[in-house]
Amino acid sequence: MAVSIAVIGCGRIGRMHADLIDRQTPGLDLVAVTDVFAESAKTVGTEHQVDVAATADEIFSSDVEAVAICTSTDTHVDLAVAAAQAGKAIFLEKPVSLSLPEIDRALGAVASAGVPLHVGFNRRFDASHAAVRDAVVNGDVGDVHMVRITSRDPEPPPIEYVKVSGGLFLDMMIHDFDMARFVTGSDVVEVYAQAAVRVDRAIGEAGDVDTAVVVMTHENGAITTIDNSRQAVYGYDQRVEAFGSAGMAASDNPRDHTTQVHRASGTERTTIPYFFLDRYIPSYLAQWSAFLDGVASGKMAVTGADGRATLVMGLAAVRSFAEGRPVRTDEITGE
Amino acid sequence: MAVSIAVIGCGRIGRMHADLIDRQTPGLDLVAVTDVFAESAKTVGTEHQVDVAATADEIFSSDVEAVAICTSTDTHVDLAVAAAQAGKAIFLEKPVSLSLPEIDRALGAVASAGVPLHVGFNRRFDASHAAVRDAVVNGDVGDVHMVRITSRDPEPPPIEYVKVSGGLFLDMMIHDFDMARFVTGSDVVEVYAQAAVRVDRAIGEAGDVDTAVVVMTHENGAITTIDNSRQAVYGYDQRVEAFGSAGMAASDNPRDHTTQVHRASGTERTTIPYFFLDRYIPSYLAQWSAFLDGVASGKMAVTGADGRATLVMGLAAVRSFAEGRPVRTDEITGE
Amino acid sequence: MAVSIAVIGCGRIGRMHADLIDRQTPGLDLVAVTDVFAESAKTVGTEHQVDVAATADEIFSSDVEAVAICTSTDTHVDLAVAAAQAGKAIFLEKPVSLSLPEIDRALGAVASAGVPLHVGFNRRFDASHAAVRDAVVNGDVGDVHMVRITSRDPEPPPIEYVKVSGGLFLDMMIHDFDMARFVTGSDVVEVYAQAAVRVDRAIGEAGDVDTAVVVMTHENGAITTIDNSRQAVYGYDQRVEAFGSAGMAASDNPRDHTTQVHRASGTERTTIPYFFLDRYIPSYLAQWSAFLDGVASGKMAVTGADGRATLVMGLAAVRSFAEGRPVRTDEITGE
Amino acid sequence: MAVSIAVIGCGRIGRMHADLIDRQTPGLDLVAVTDVFAESAKTVGTEHQVDVAATADEIFSSDVEAVAICTSTDTHVDLAVAAAQAGKAIFLEKPVSLSLPEIDRALGAVASAGVPLHVGFNRRFDASHAAVRDAVVNGDVGDVHMVRITSRDPEPPPIEYVKVSGGLFLDMMIHDFDMARFVTGSDVVEVYAQAAVRVDRAIGEAGDVDTAVVVMTHENGAITTIDNSRQAVYGYDQRVEAFGSAGMAASDNPRDHTTQVHRASGTERTTIPYFFLDRYIPSYLAQWSAFLDGVASGKMAVTGADGRATLVMGLAAVRSFAEGRPVRTDEITGE
Repeated sequence: MAVSIAVIGCGRIGRMHADLIDRQTPGLDLVAVTDVFAESAKTVGTEHQVDVAATADEIFSSDVEAVAICTSTDTHVDLAVAAAQAGKAIFLEKPVSLSLPEIDRALGAVASAGVPLHVGFNRRFDASHAAVRDAVVNGDVGDVHMVRITSRDPEPPPIEYVKVSGGLFLDMMIHDFDMARFVTGSDVVEVYAQAAVRVDRAIGEAGDVDTAVVVMTHENGAITTIDNSRQAVYGYDQRVEAFGSAGMAASDNPRDHTTQVHRASGTERTTIPYFFLDRYIPSYLAQWSAFLDGVASGKMAVTGADGRATLVMGLAAVRSFAEGRPVRTDEITGE
Repeated sequence: MAVSIAVIGCGRIGRMHADLIDRQTPGLDLVAVTDVFAESAKTVGTEHQVDVAATADEIFSSDVEAVAICTSTDTHVDLAVAAAQAGKAIFLEKPVSLSLPEIDRALGAVASAGVPLHVGFNRRFDASHAAVRDAVVNGDVGDVHMVRITSRDPEPPPIEYVKVSGGLFLDMMIHDFDMARFVTGSDVVEVYAQAAVRVDRAIGEAGDVDTAVVVMTHENGAITTIDNSRQAVYGYDQRVEAFGSAGMAASDNPRDHTTQVHRASGTERTTIPYFFLDRYIPSYLAQWSAFLDGVASGKMAVTGADGRATLVMGLAAVRSFAEGRPVRTDEITGE
Repeated sequence: MAVSIAVIGCGRIGRMHADLIDRQTPGLDLVAVTDVFAESAKTVGTEHQVDVAATADEIFSSDVEAVAICTSTDTHVDLAVAAAQAGKAIFLEKPVSLSLPEIDRALGAVASAGVPLHVGFNRRFDASHAAVRDAVVNGDVGDVHMVRITSRDPEPPPIEYVKVSGGLFLDMMIHDFDMARFVTGSDVVEVYAQAAVRVDRAIGEAGDVDTAVVVMTHENGAITTIDNSRQAVYGYDQRVEAFGSAGMAASDNPRDHTTQVHRASGTERTTIPYFFLDRYIPSYLAQWSAFLDGVASGKMAVTGADGRATLVMGLAAVRSFAEGRPVRTDEITGE
Repeated sequence: MAVSIAVIGCGRIGRMHADLIDRQTPGLDLVAVTDVFAESAKTVGTEHQVDVAATADEIFSSDVEAVAICTSTDTHVDLAVAAAQAGKAIFLEKPVSLSLPEIDRALGAVASAGVPLHVGFNRRFDASHAAVRDAVVNGDVGDVHMVRITSRDPEPPPIEYVKVSGGLFLDMMIHDFDMARFVTGSDVVEVYAQAAVRVDRAIGEAGDVDTAVVVMTHENGAITTIDNSRQAVYGYDQRVEAFGSAGMAASDNPRDHTTQVHRASGTERTTIPYFFLDRYIPSYLAQWSAFLDGVASGKMAVTGADGRATLVMGLAAVRSFAEGRPVRTDEITGE
């Protein structure tokens, strides 16, 4: 029997999840959607012929088994707490929250209720990045000495979004912080951040940066370097490299097709994906499959603790950049 | 408004088409399915919650706008004739038929009825092969001098299938014959075939070959080489190369993921797709999109004449191999 | 102690050999050069500070241990016979001769004298092509079912050269005939040739072709396809692929450097080598090393019999194209 | 007329230079060698049939036009000063010195004498890295936002060498500091270093590190990341990537050959070069060609100021790692 699920939040990402659940995840049964904008919910509900709930509470009090929380970040914690108290299995989009006490409140409620919680770090389910992790786990890399993560968007988000995003380190690099822990299997103890405004002055005026490099030391001694840019004109550039005592594994960008054209001037390959969905749809599907496994086993692949760890790293990066010095993560957690 | 369509034949390929139509082609509305095995039709109909017709005639006499004929090859012509007479837009799986007079009977009925007919050479819609064709059309290749097509299955079909398939040249290489005309934009005037039984003796005992090379001359002077094998242990190997006065364009196999592992012994990439669906699902989806365009415009991207041309090439290859000499296609058509 | 050697013929290829021997082959000691054009010999002799012999006979009657015959093809046999009778180890540039009786005369003299003879099929010593052969020998390919050889020049030779070259099959494809035997380890029993004039009408007027495809069957059942063009505008395109029951090995063209440039329009790699020396100098050096091994052991890596076999294949291809039918090699050898 | 040159220092690198000069650089005329170990000088002198000078002074007082200083680092400055005073054109191996006042003494003497000085940062002349620089210069990269340099040795040097090397930052990363300035065309203002002992505990006991990451900010705003390891088991890993407003250019490692082997388990390419000479010999040759251009024009491609800048960066990295904070280069130069 399929697991019944409702989608809370019908913006771009919620709509995508509703679609992937309904059309391509046989084990999940989409039964309802809701959104603070009734019109958005109605559009998605009509398209998938499912109930449109007036409020999230209506969903929590229904007998649906699972909920996908895809609303704006500032509502995540309250919704997660309510969902937990209602006994629902929870899929929660990243980032969980921009506040550590708030995250702890959500995780506390989830723990008390004993419900499974999956945080939406979909890149772990990208076949290429997962193969890098696999190469670490199966010994091909040996002891991990260095990790390099490149993550560059094709173009900056609207400046209105930048202003409320929490900033590059908490909004964009949060995925890379998760990747660093995923690939190394080890927590981070120190973070150094360097950043600049190079892409668009307006981003700087909004108090953010658009170009950043972070160097981190893990508990196991590995050193991870992350570089982010808000604008790579050649496409959505996403690469992960793990280097160690036995070898190296590195993911590369896929191509829109494989054909190469050879001319007197050189050989040309086509572009890499420009839009993040062109790259990561299969990872979102694989994530739903993992969510189903987690509902069945009670053990999720990406946990609330994973979400919390990325926030700690992000806050350390923010402080490092502000103060021009490496910051230990225990300065953030106060441990 | 979506175009209503019924799927006739619910074997592996018909089931796939029903699925792609229903779940991922918004412009098409799957309304019915049928199969000579009622049980197969019922399974597919239940899964997609559509009518299960007892016979194809029941579909032809309904008000459905289009039909997808996905039955065994020997039934294609009769079904196409009936569909044409019923005024349906027709999607017809390849090969159209193994008999030239039969093809002509089908094409005659289609012409008389004035219905649009699309023959299912899906590989034209593969983004990589299409990019090779595009490079010819846009001048990157210049005048085409030589084309190379490699097409190798990961493993042979069941021997029972081999016996009724029409043989490698008509069953498997038919796709490559279409690709040769697609890439060059030119008909073939002469065919030379060399072949052998190298993979499985049982295939030879069934009167067929499993390894073959064909050299063809096109009207425009291009020379195309095709090689086929029933068994490439490393996966489903599908490559097309066009070489000409201005350059070369070549499609390669996609990979299951992009990660490379570097060890002291060398660098390893993962496998290429093994199953044809892993490679060609996007091409089947793009083909349905092209079918919709053809229904709208009345002009299909792949026509009955294209289907007929591949049969002529296949029959010439069969005769060439039997007689150990190059065979002109007008020996087959009698023109 | 180094082996003393003299270079006979100081044209482009002889000058190259003199240079490689003198500067980069410590085991060989260049002691003399000669050429029918005294001026050419003098230039090379001066550059390398070695004796300039007035005639080849002067070299044969000296105590030099080995000779490199790098003259025009029509003089190969007489010089090889004389060198053999003088007891010299012989390096002989390809093709040995365009006449089968003449080749037999040369091989007879070599056999009678018991001197070691190496025929200059340098491509066997290219690290990439050799790795394809190695993959066959070590079992990675398994039983060889099909071989594909692509060999395309960047531009045609001068039309005056074309007229005396013996034609594309004997002049250019001769390397590929050798490669086919090298990779499969098996002789060829049948040859089918298709060809055209597509690059330059003047080549056709000179009685030759510039674009050709050959399909051959080997004794061991492998089928080899060769394609040649006199003009690949993107560079000197040299690729070999061996496909078999256990896998595939394929050599690709090297690049002038590894850098890729990623732009919004796609990713560009630099050109492949344009001039054959840019590609094959390391193979010529490795060939001299193999020659030294052969002098020491008395057993050459590429023998007179190898040279003879390629001529048989070339003559079969010429006849096949002339008569429009597959030609068995025993029609040429009369066996 | 060729420029006469003498090689001072006949260790591994001096012997290589003598060989490249004598055999493959027609514009240079090797006339003498010397070494503090007379035996070493004699071996090289005999091999190339040139004078063996008893001392460097003997060379300085001769009429040789140029000298290549290939001795141990601690002798560089005295020899450079003497060579300058003798009016010789100078090729000086990297690093110039481990002491800033000493470098200034050398550069002062060179300036006073007005002789041309080339510092041996050969990697600038690697065709792949140079193509990255070219992509910056010709606008393909646009404004440079980030540079990534990976530089990993296949195995650590002998521990005795480590002890006197000046440490990873001054001995190994010095090449990468130069590359960062070369690619960006901009000086560095701040350096942050993170490092560890991961490869061999003995390196740590010798007071050095074997794994390091450095983040630097350039005057023009670019951020460069360098990672170094003393041991990459898969070979000598050397990559440079420049990312900017218009695109990205990235050099990759060459391969020993191009052949790929496809098996059921995946596709394998051969190893990358293991020994640095296998990778960089062509760059050393190109460097000699550039040296000749510099002697002719009086303007060297790599100057003493370039050598000085790398030392400043290296000293900043050393201090950053020691003090756990970013260090401005003007803290080192005292400006």
